[in-house]
Amino acid sequence: MPEFRQNMVSKEWVIIATERAKRPDQFQKKEEKPPLPLHREDCPFCPGNESKTPPPLFSIEKDGSWSLRVVPNKFAALQSHLTTQRRHEGRFLKADGFGIAEVIIETPIHNRTLATMDLEEVKNTVTAYQERYIALSKIEKIGLITIFRNYGERAGTSLEHPHSQIIATPIVPPHVRNPLYQSQLACDTFGDCIYCGMMEEERHQQVRVVEETNYFLILCPFASRSPFETRIYPKVHRSSFVSISKEELDDFAFVLQKTLRRLYLGLNDPDYNYIIRSAPLEDNNVKYHHWYLVIVPKLTTPAGFEIGTGIYINTTLPEQCAEFLRGVKV
Amino acid sequence: MPEFRQNMVSKEWVIIATERAKRPDQFQKKEEKPPLPLHREDCPFCPGNESKTPPPLFSIEKDGSWSLRVVPNKFAALQSHLTTQRRHEGRFLKADGFGIAEVIIETPIHNRTLATMDLEEVKNTVTAYQERYIALSKIEKIGLITIFRNYGERAGTSLEHPHSQIIATPIVPPHVRNPLYQSQLACDTFGDCIYCGMMEEERHQQVRVVEETNYFLILCPFASRSPFETRIYPKVHRSSFVSISKEELDDFAFVLQKTLRRLYLGLNDPDYNYIIRSAPLEDNNVKYHHWYLVIVPKLTTPAGFEIGTGIYINTTLPEQCAEFLRGVKV
Repeated sequence: MPEFRQNMVSKEWVIIATERAKRPDQFQKKEEKPPLPLHREDCPFCPGNESKTPPPLFSIEKDGSWSLRVVPNKFAALQSHLTTQRRHEGRFLKADGFGIAEVIIETPIHNRTLATMDLEEVKNTVTAYQERYIALSKIEKIGLITIFRNYGERAGTSLEHPHSQIIATPIVPPHVRNPLYQSQLACDTFGDCIYCGMMEEERHQQVRVVEETNYFLILCPFASRSPFETRIYPKVHRSSFVSISKEELDDFAFVLQKTLRRLYLGLNDPDYNYIIRSAPLEDNNVKYHHWYLVIVPKLTTPAGFEIGTGIYINTTLPEQCAEFLRGVKV
Repeated sequence: MPEFRQNMVSKEWVIIATERAKRPDQFQKKEEKPPLPLHREDCPFCPGNESKTPPPLFSIEKDGSWSLRVVPNKFAALQSHLTTQRRHEGRFLKADGFGIAEVIIETPIHNRTLATMDLEEVKNTVTAYQERYIALSKIEKIGLITIFRNYGERAGTSLEHPHSQIIATPIVPPHVRNPLYQSQLACDTFGDCIYCGMMEEERHQQVRVVEETNYFLILCPFASRSPFETRIYPKVHRSSFVSISKEELDDFAFVLQKTLRRLYLGLNDPDYNYIIRSAPLEDNNVKYHHWYLVIVPKLTTPAGFEIGTGIYINTTLPEQCAEFLRGVKV
């Protein structure tokens, strides 16, 4: 029997369409990706081509060469030299395109990905996330910092070399603000963080939990919008990614890689997006928001109904996805 | 210079990324689709295979055979025999999957599409939209009726035969409700419909208008989320598609086909989704909502930043898209 499920925070609904349901293993990618070389002459992120990117803002070195570089995005959608001036054009509102866009080149090796790197490299990556988050949060007029990774063509990237991105904007959009209103209201009503309560419930039900470590709970959410949506929640309440400790950061690298490896091995290297949803800078330290990372494997295509209503039709049970992921040998 | 632009109703922002900007003609599809046959033995929507679909709910006949059929969706995500019962599962909320899903088979001819049909067939299609909208709106517990069309694989369909879909749900989701709050607030503040005001502004600025007929205004919106987003707004204020007159319906068929033909010829048959955004049934006749049709050609892929923030990065100017579409000979 199909059912509607509500996202506890955003209040958006999904349809879990059991009549069309597929088994989790039916989402395994059929086609093999062509193997990539260790190094590409024409890749702007490969060693030897450092002059093709602006000078690094942050880097990690080892034995005299770089292990990770963070550089300004040469094709940035926003620019750091502009103002945040907003103005009307007739009845319409616009603002200068002020913002900062950076690229994290996660490794010098062209054909790796987070799922197949050394843990050390994943630690470097999340360390860079935090370092740049801290640096960007000090810049006046920045309101929101979004860290994300697009992996594969279906996820919107054509650049093969392992990389993540950061975009810092002055604007906090309704898409981010609306769930904050809801979690604030819930906190005003019940006195505590709605995410902490959700985790308590998930730990109690034990059907959507993929794994639990000292610091993190990994699960396929109750109202997953698409197959194998997976989230990593810190168990310690923090509204912002910025304030995570060294010990937590190490554990984060570990669970991030392990979770991506489950997807990589279980579904045959699917394309995906992941995003760190951290509070807007002004809500850096509040009781009602709780940061997390959401992984969205690109296994299906949202269509007219999803665009029109925001109700996603999901053809798998999150409970079955969690069970499948738990069973992947990593 | 890149800029942020705000959608006047939803209050969401887009980035118009002029630094990465492409000329409109760069979005022309390169690969040719393989030509389709007039009829396919194995197509459940082709004549001769009527028994592969449930009996029609509505049909249009001509010279003893059908020109259009509306049938229940055999692979419906929702089911009409269920209740609308909502219940808690621990702290989570769910509801039985009550709802109605129908398919409009727009023509018996396998290899047509709205852009290449006879105008008569397009009129049949929008007549079926209205007939089914009226019929479904009489069913108790239905709250929202969404009419949409997914065209091509990038738009989420693998069925070639020309068809549209209707899904009627008991639930009105926040994605639909939030813009209604905003347009209601605007109406409470300024006393009139925000969409009517927007059209007045667009008619004044004359840079994003593609065409104007007796009853409709076609434009590329100021805050287009993706290249060639195009909207068809009725000039007569109506909150619901249900109440459009015969004369308006004929003009609607005409502009819908003409607009799709502009995209078809100008961009070499791109995949697209379109959606009729009509008011929830209880808001059928209100001053603050204004129905419209939005066409989203699938030319780009939303990635992590879009998923995380709802801020879409658009690499074309809507003004240039409108100019390009105006220039297509149809």
